[in-house]
Amino acid sequence: MKTYTAWLPFLKEVPPRGLETAELAAWELEQGLRGLDCGLSGRCAVDGTMPEEAYRLERDGETCLVTGGRIGVLYGVYALLRALALGQALPEGVQRPFYPARMINCWDNADGSIERGYAGRSLWFEGGAVRYDPDRLLELARLMASVGLNVLCLNNVNVRDPAERLIEDWLPKLRELAALFRPFGIRLMVSVDFAQPMLHGIPTADPLDERVAAWWRERARDIWTQIPDLYGFLVKADSEHRPGPFTYGRSHAEGANMLARAIAPYGGKLVWRAFVYNCLQDWRDQTTDRPCAAYDTYVPLDGQFDANVILQVKNGPFDFQVREPVSPTLLKMAHTSLALEFQLAQEYTGQQIDIYAMAPLFREVFDEVPPEKVQAVAAVSNFGRDGNYFGHPFAAANLFSFGCFAWDPASEPGETMAAWAGLTYPSCARTLTEEILLPSREIYEQYTAPLGLCWMVNPNHHYGPNPMGYEFQSWGTYHRASRDAVGIDRTGAGTGYAAQYPPAMRARYENPETCPDRLLLFFHRLPYSFVMRDGRTLIQRIYDDHFEGAERVEKMAEILRTLPLPQPDRDTALARMEKQLANAREWRDVVNTFFWRFSGVPDAHGRKIYD
Amino acid sequence: MKTYTAWLPFLKEVPPRGLETAELAAWELEQGLRGLDCGLSGRCAVDGTMPEEAYRLERDGETCLVTGGRIGVLYGVYALLRALALGQALPEGVQRPFYPARMINCWDNADGSIERGYAGRSLWFEGGAVRYDPDRLLELARLMASVGLNVLCLNNVNVRDPAERLIEDWLPKLRELAALFRPFGIRLMVSVDFAQPMLHGIPTADPLDERVAAWWRERARDIWTQIPDLYGFLVKADSEHRPGPFTYGRSHAEGANMLARAIAPYGGKLVWRAFVYNCLQDWRDQTTDRPCAAYDTYVPLDGQFDANVILQVKNGPFDFQVREPVSPTLLKMAHTSLALEFQLAQEYTGQQIDIYAMAPLFREVFDEVPPEKVQAVAAVSNFGRDGNYFGHPFAAANLFSFGCFAWDPASEPGETMAAWAGLTYPSCARTLTEEILLPSREIYEQYTAPLGLCWMVNPNHHYGPNPMGYEFQSWGTYHRASRDAVGIDRTGAGTGYAAQYPPAMRARYENPETCPDRLLLFFHRLPYSFVMRDGRTLIQRIYDDHFEGAERVEKMAEILRTLPLPQPDRDTALARMEKQLANAREWRDVVNTFFWRFSGVPDAHGRKIYD
Repeated sequence: MKTYTAWLPFLKEVPPRGLETAELAAWELEQGLRGLDCGLSGRCAVDGTMPEEAYRLERDGETCLVTGGRIGVLYGVYALLRALALGQALPEGVQRPFYPARMINCWDNADGSIERGYAGRSLWFEGGAVRYDPDRLLELARLMASVGLNVLCLNNVNVRDPAERLIEDWLPKLRELAALFRPFGIRLMVSVDFAQPMLHGIPTADPLDERVAAWWRERARDIWTQIPDLYGFLVKADSEHRPGPFTYGRSHAEGANMLARAIAPYGGKLVWRAFVYNCLQDWRDQTTDRPCAAYDTYVPLDGQFDANVILQVKNGPFDFQVREPVSPTLLKMAHTSLALEFQLAQEYTGQQIDIYAMAPLFREVFDEVPPEKVQAVAAVSNFGRDGNYFGHPFAAANLFSFGCFAWDPASEPGETMAAWAGLTYPSCARTLTEEILLPSREIYEQYTAPLGLCWMVNPNHHYGPNPMGYEFQSWGTYHRASRDAVGIDRTGAGTGYAAQYPPAMRARYENPETCPDRLLLFFHRLPYSFVMRDGRTLIQRIYDDHFEGAERVEKMAEILRTLPLPQPDRDTALARMEKQLANAREWRDVVNTFFWRFSGVPDAHGRKIYD
Repeated sequence: MKTYTAWLPFLKEVPPRGLETAELAAWELEQGLRGLDCGLSGRCAVDGTMPEEAYRLERDGETCLVTGGRIGVLYGVYALLRALALGQALPEGVQRPFYPARMINCWDNADGSIERGYAGRSLWFEGGAVRYDPDRLLELARLMASVGLNVLCLNNVNVRDPAERLIEDWLPKLRELAALFRPFGIRLMVSVDFAQPMLHGIPTADPLDERVAAWWRERARDIWTQIPDLYGFLVKADSEHRPGPFTYGRSHAEGANMLARAIAPYGGKLVWRAFVYNCLQDWRDQTTDRPCAAYDTYVPLDGQFDANVILQVKNGPFDFQVREPVSPTLLKMAHTSLALEFQLAQEYTGQQIDIYAMAPLFREVFDEVPPEKVQAVAAVSNFGRDGNYFGHPFAAANLFSFGCFAWDPASEPGETMAAWAGLTYPSCARTLTEEILLPSREIYEQYTAPLGLCWMVNPNHHYGPNPMGYEFQSWGTYHRASRDAVGIDRTGAGTGYAAQYPPAMRARYENPETCPDRLLLFFHRLPYSFVMRDGRTLIQRIYDDHFEGAERVEKMAEILRTLPLPQPDRDTALARMEKQLANAREWRDVVNTFFWRFSGVPDAHGRKIYD
């Protein structure tokens, strides 16, 4: 098979099936050194005294030595190859991951579609059944392992019939898949339907009903007998029409703990998503404020979750918008295991058409959320059956950098992007990193919804501008632009959301003088004439950002055209850039016109704003 | 089979298959008189000297006599039964239809769905094949014939694979269907794909290419050999991504005439829809104005169409909005056979949830378009596989009244609605007619898009408010509301659309002082402070209409609850009324808030407008 090697160009062949991790490490090392053609030899060895995922790299003349724990030895091999490829010094001392669980959540449906997938169809589902090409899964597993990702949830959190069969009569298939991923140190996870017992004649899914608990215990025994190292279950409950404990007047701790106890005997983890809000809100209601929902629901439950429950909280209080403050829930649950959830799938951030590198986002989030506040990280996957796995070849950088930050949340965007670009496109890595990848998020932000307003996208598919697309809907997503002002007051004088933060953050956000510009309209309702710290009015800043954002895409396109990218990546990237250019112009003009119609304030620089 | 008799409660049994029209007339007469239990006897007879569709009713003591042409005898029977059921005097003299072609266009797809269908799935397609229950088709044929409708186009104008097979290997099925409808005087028509020859190896659909013309001639011979009375073909070309003559640099006359010549030898008609506009318009472009499109495309072709071409023009220049002026194309093509097209399917008018009786619309249109200006009428169907055929039992009134206006465009809404209600719900006909049906259109208009603005619906499905849903899209559907003004100037100072009307109409529309209130914002861009003839400001009129419209639905609901409707109609109507109430409140609040946010003008009466 012709493989797509992404950031591992020196690994040209698909690894064999059925190796132990140590054997796989040796195979990858041998092949990698050959692929690098660097004249070095290498050895790798498992050191049973080292932590399972740790490794150490050493060099003795022309021989490289990788020593590691059971899985760490493989991580060490990839780290060695990466350092050699980039011409970097080997890291000194024992390397180990900051977070024990570094998870990828796939939103793959059994019919083969992927919810919010922008890189083709599912790699393991098709036509309501498990179907896959083992070579492609081995390639994917290698990509994940090469950046230390170690948990893979196979199916959509919205468990659609018949994906629930993964833990029933499809168990043999799940077992096969687990065996494919196991040598790479990747443990599988499955999303389960909270009401799954009701598909089997039990008339309730009440977590305190003994019949329900017994059904799950029985399932768990069966599952872990077949797959002893299954990581656990992922659950989306009481959210966007999914069933959950609220149906029975139970708390989410009661719901999660029931499941957690069923799988605890086998070491299973119960990952419970904290994505609960009222998705049937009346837009007239100005007291309910969706960003408050996760905190209001979960913080009172802090300390009530069993030890093997992990509460998975999105990075922001809404839903992966381009700009949100960090979720206050992440800062206030000291007695609960938390996972921080990102979305690599670019649902709201350009859909793998527009270039949007997330490393700066990861850095910003960890600057606000001290890494030790959470115990795991997770990300919604951005890959699929496309030849290059990611739709846009640059979208690979997001899986790569997520792995880097999951391993070490002190990572720097510049370094991770330079590493990815250096491995993938060594002949133009620096320009690509500095002129395209690193500024891409800021640019995207400039031409889309201004200053933390969020939700100005087209409903449903979420690509392109629609400033009122969510304004009168039931999703709790409003900006309430009028002729005088725009934004939601989330201070104490408004919805009170800001009070969910620790005092210093709260104070910073509540004062428009200290609130970061990019969050200004997230926390405040302000007149268009509001004067910002740099002396510009709010409306002029909106215009400036949009003209500048679109202009910067034009420049980015010019630079992109000059880059010596290999084919087919070059054609793919150039074709998508044409769409990004159109998208940026459309956003610029729609947003500017929208605010011009409301404010009646012309652009200070006389640029074209359409009536 | 338990039949749903709609407005023919005295015809309780499904008529037998395979009768000649005269036999069917006798069977219906006998059964109807029995069902009416009126103590009268009847006779019917064909008079070969009368026009085919004409009839005469006479009464001789206790015996009623129907004399008619080949089809007219059946029409006469239904007319007699209707008059007897309503206790009306028999019409005097020979009755005959104003228009020879009274057409229903079904937008049924071969997969069984119906585009813009609100009454269930297709009655004759399912799973990519022709499948039907003959008894239901006989019932439908009877309903159509009972109000004189005589042409039925079976498949969607957007001919989706494999519906094109109706004129290919599905011809035997088409022949079966034609035989079912034939006794009722109903001739079938099929929508064809302009590029259909290309499915058969011909590399072009250029209408001037002899291979194309020959393919269609061959098809026509085959079709009319099987079904000699097929009415003809319906074509949507060069519209909303459909193929057409523009692809080959040919005019629509050239395209239509090629097809018309293929079917002319058999008496076939070629019905060509004049629904052509740029559906990829840039919203920034203020010179292109979609309402101009049909006139600009077709009026220059007047006189160039063959005699068996019928150009089918929608009643308004947009697309079946609640309020549009009549299409100027209908007034300016004296040398072309025209069909006036209505849409009974309530796509933009409540989707057979909200009550919306169209008889007042038909009257208004014929008041502006002298009936002799057009040579045929057509309507998009509103029926489907639902038990009551129409989704909402009152939606039946629209098929009924369309039949009445197609037979006699001088009909009066009050009479047709009283007739329908008197036949269907005799115990509450007057209240239903006067308090609910007749005002329903005005009420719906009051709570939806104001004063001719159009297009404030949710995109795609077109139910419920979304004032900016189409504002930045490519469909040519803009209101350009700003803080100062709203509407499109379509006078000579603006897009010039008004100049497409004859001078008197143009003058009336171009002057805001004489332009009808309900079309004010269709033709003019006006400030919110504009003072209307009744002294109210524009913004106050918008608020008033919306509060009043929603209030009137509340009153309508109260009245509806008191009506002694039979079951299951009562439950159906009451359940839908709950949805209409919610819809009316949503429209009221969304539209009022939208304009309040733009204008900053409070309601003069202090009613609640949300921020």
